[in-house]
Amino acid sequence: MTQTAEDIRMMAAALREARMAFEAGEVPIGAVVALGGRIIGRGHNMTEALHDVTAHAEMQAITAATQTLGAKYLRDCTLYVTVEPCLMCAGAIGWSQLGRVVWGADDPRRGYSSLVSHERPALHPQTRTERGVLGDECLTLLRSFFSARR
Amino acid sequence: MTQTAEDIRMMAAALREARMAFEAGEVPIGAVVALGGRIIGRGHNMTEALHDVTAHAEMQAITAATQTLGAKYLRDCTLYVTVEPCLMCAGAIGWSQLGRVVWGADDPRRGYSSLVSHERPALHPQTRTERGVLGDECLTLLRSFFSARR
Repeated sequence: MTQTAEDIRMMAAALREARMAFEAGEVPIGAVVALGGRIIGRGHNMTEALHDVTAHAEMQAITAATQTLGAKYLRDCTLYVTVEPCLMCAGAIGWSQLGRVVWGADDPRRGYSSLVSHERPALHPQTRTERGVLGDECLTLLRSFFSARR
Repeated sequence: MTQTAEDIRMMAAALREARMAFEAGEVPIGAVVALGGRIIGRGHNMTEALHDVTAHAEMQAITAATQTLGAKYLRDCTLYVTVEPCLMCAGAIGWSQLGRVVWGADDPRRGYSSLVSHERPALHPQTRTERGVLGDECLTLLRSFFSARR
């Protein structure tokens, strides 16, 4: 693992987004897109509020970042997300050509890494990935949401 | 293949959406979501206009359909799209639990079916798929776009 102080700072910002989702009764997942130490896009899961299954944290943050840059591609950016991206979000990460993706908690059931074929990558070949940054905090928040619903 | 007159009529509507994308200088892919013979969501590729890699035809049509219904799930609906969905759109189709997905032309390079693991399905287990409806027309439109750019 090559996580840095900036990785932890940015994941903490993604966790703040996730807590906003939690307080709104949404599955608590948050994301930020960073470029040169600055956050250029943020998002949290809003599928319930928007009645929209595509309104995942990553989709919101990627769309926000492209609006900030006025450009479609995010090659020099890093996406931080509190939980491993699903297949849809992995596809969006691929299209946006994000330079690096960092997630907190793994998602063995819905995470893209267990769903895609090993022969052909879901992400852009240049995209580096990192897992486990503030992973315990990210997982604890997710679990506390689901245990409160049972 | 179990395509019906309604399948052809709906794919023709998706093709009209694709032609709108073509005329706007976008990769010409179109989609509609149908329920009980009515179109409840439409969309075409708008990635250039919106500077947004997530603005695929299917994403637009799915979001529009959920807004029409005021509901997140599209279990009784059929999505018609002129080209095989990519991984991102397959993920969105999975989350929306669409009852049926019909596409025109295959996409051997970017289509989800060649990218996902065979052990675990990308779509919801209940989702039926159909391919090749007006496939030649869909492919011809796509090819004419790319040959004009070369």
